[in-house]
Amino acid sequence: MSRFLAKKYKMLDAYVPGEQPRDKKYIKLNTNEFPYPPAPDVIAAVNADVISDLRLYSDPTAKALKEALAKYYGVGAENVFVSNGSDESLNFAFACFFEDGVAFADLTYGFYSVFADLYGIDAKIIPLDKDFSIVPDDYIGLDRGAVIANPNAPTGKALPLSDIERIVASNPDRVIVVDEAYVDFGGESAIPLTKKYDNLLVCMTYSKSRGMAGARLGFAIGNADLIADLELMKYSTNPYNLDSLALRMGAAALTDASKAYYEEKVGEVIRVREETAKKLEVLGAEVLPSKANFLFVKLPNIAGGVAYQKLRERGILVRHFSKARIADYLRVSIGTADDMKAFINAVKQIIEV
Amino acid sequence: MSRFLAKKYKMLDAYVPGEQPRDKKYIKLNTNEFPYPPAPDVIAAVNADVISDLRLYSDPTAKALKEALAKYYGVGAENVFVSNGSDESLNFAFACFFEDGVAFADLTYGFYSVFADLYGIDAKIIPLDKDFSIVPDDYIGLDRGAVIANPNAPTGKALPLSDIERIVASNPDRVIVVDEAYVDFGGESAIPLTKKYDNLLVCMTYSKSRGMAGARLGFAIGNADLIADLELMKYSTNPYNLDSLALRMGAAALTDASKAYYEEKVGEVIRVREETAKKLEVLGAEVLPSKANFLFVKLPNIAGGVAYQKLRERGILVRHFSKARIADYLRVSIGTADDMKAFINAVKQIIEV
Repeated sequence: MSRFLAKKYKMLDAYVPGEQPRDKKYIKLNTNEFPYPPAPDVIAAVNADVISDLRLYSDPTAKALKEALAKYYGVGAENVFVSNGSDESLNFAFACFFEDGVAFADLTYGFYSVFADLYGIDAKIIPLDKDFSIVPDDYIGLDRGAVIANPNAPTGKALPLSDIERIVASNPDRVIVVDEAYVDFGGESAIPLTKKYDNLLVCMTYSKSRGMAGARLGFAIGNADLIADLELMKYSTNPYNLDSLALRMGAAALTDASKAYYEEKVGEVIRVREETAKKLEVLGAEVLPSKANFLFVKLPNIAGGVAYQKLRERGILVRHFSKARIADYLRVSIGTADDMKAFINAVKQIIEV
Repeated sequence: MSRFLAKKYKMLDAYVPGEQPRDKKYIKLNTNEFPYPPAPDVIAAVNADVISDLRLYSDPTAKALKEALAKYYGVGAENVFVSNGSDESLNFAFACFFEDGVAFADLTYGFYSVFADLYGIDAKIIPLDKDFSIVPDDYIGLDRGAVIANPNAPTGKALPLSDIERIVASNPDRVIVVDEAYVDFGGESAIPLTKKYDNLLVCMTYSKSRGMAGARLGFAIGNADLIADLELMKYSTNPYNLDSLALRMGAAALTDASKAYYEEKVGEVIRVREETAKKLEVLGAEVLPSKANFLFVKLPNIAGGVAYQKLRERGILVRHFSKARIADYLRVSIGTADDMKAFINAVKQIIEV
């Protein structure tokens, strides 16, 4: 920290991304990446001509990508905001909509508390119940906005759409942000509700179910006025927030052929997830029911931190959070069938020791 | 604007990027883009394998790119911050370093006042002199930080390094940001001074002299503690701010072969700039001496807004600012020799009418 840093940021605890070690090749099950490459249309969208055109600025209005997303999701282009990862959408939503405070779960995406600290927003932390579920009644008639990850991370549990609607309807003068990063793996999207409620913003990402974490593409869908506010933040910070290649690849990931590709691959992830969950339960593990591309798992007779370390020694990276209530759990991303076989074998070794 | 927008942002005037019309093909001299494609090594850096790897998150530490930039500029990797365009570096610098206020010129990059408004920073606007020069004495012993574009935009005029050093040395307890977006076209970089002064931050971009505006790559060089503050902001907003392709292309733009390529092409831009300036002067235009990849020009006997419109009708886009003192000037980016021939021909037509 320099002696020049603004006082308000001196106590800021930044977000800590999952580790990306380069010391050896790991089976990487720690950052919920997709185990398959982007769709062939995405790969074909970039060639030498396209790269030569990088001398020109990218389209700050992101017109083509917005139109493609609007068509895909059955909304208008004015209902779509595109961002540098969904983190940028969430960042702007916190800046714009939560001046009276925000509510979110005690166990959820770690960035929410970072954004609240960054903007000096009062955060009401609402504990999950003993089964690690969000209790919808806790979010009815709030004195502030809220952000709900659905499915939630790191638990993988999802709320039905009826509960989301009840929450949104009960807070007509507060913005409810629903973070659907993982929705394609079994959740129900709230996008259709954005037509009915002007206080609902749905955030999504290309990083999980579209295999494009490294392309940094996210988006938000909501009432046109909410989207205009996010645009105001974008044009006040970084109008060219998406590069030309990401804009192109983002649209290419929405073609009919890409849709078919992703549906097949997402189906495979779901199949492998269920199979892995069953195997873990046979081994005596406690496994939360997941609607995401990861499992939240407590292995038998071994502390979470120890299990994390022993898996790492065996070349398998998972995520462990040293946090009350979940210190004995691991968040395990779903890789390919082979990745998960290796994971199960490693689990057998470490719980037998 | 929605009814939910935070009060402090309701009066925000966002930045207005140069227009990117799609109605027909223009000779585009309005956003200071490089007239040549990125270096061959940059184009070769992206292929199908690299795109397949996009399923993985990009390296949030940007290790390889930072090391390449550090080697290129003769500093340590801990002295380098990489960002989504230089706008992101500038954004974070405003957030971190100017809580006591900031000074900048009345005629300079339009984003500085947007950032000041965004963060509620008191801005001291210092007029350029009658020749559109920054007066270094105005920046000696300030009661606040400062940001200086050198060369300045839209004027193209540059301060010698001795003046920059005098300003930095006279404000030891304030951060001085020098925005060197255009430095490669004839300015003197202050990067060597970052080793001597812990209050100097130099911001640069790949958008101008490296022909990569569409790749969204910028960086800042300074004392390691200043860089740590920028990293804190990055990890508190968007840790994966650069995508994997941009990271790769950024490093590929710094190879020996790329360096030779860019030196040749930058030399060509400078040659065409000087030739264009002479032709404009012969036609009776007033042309400011430029160290950038654009000219700031007042055409004879025609108002700036009219000239802009008449050039546009002839398929040539330049930038016009409807602002006191400069309403009769045009900012004209330097294109290829052919682009500039077409521009001069169009100028001849519109000033003869």
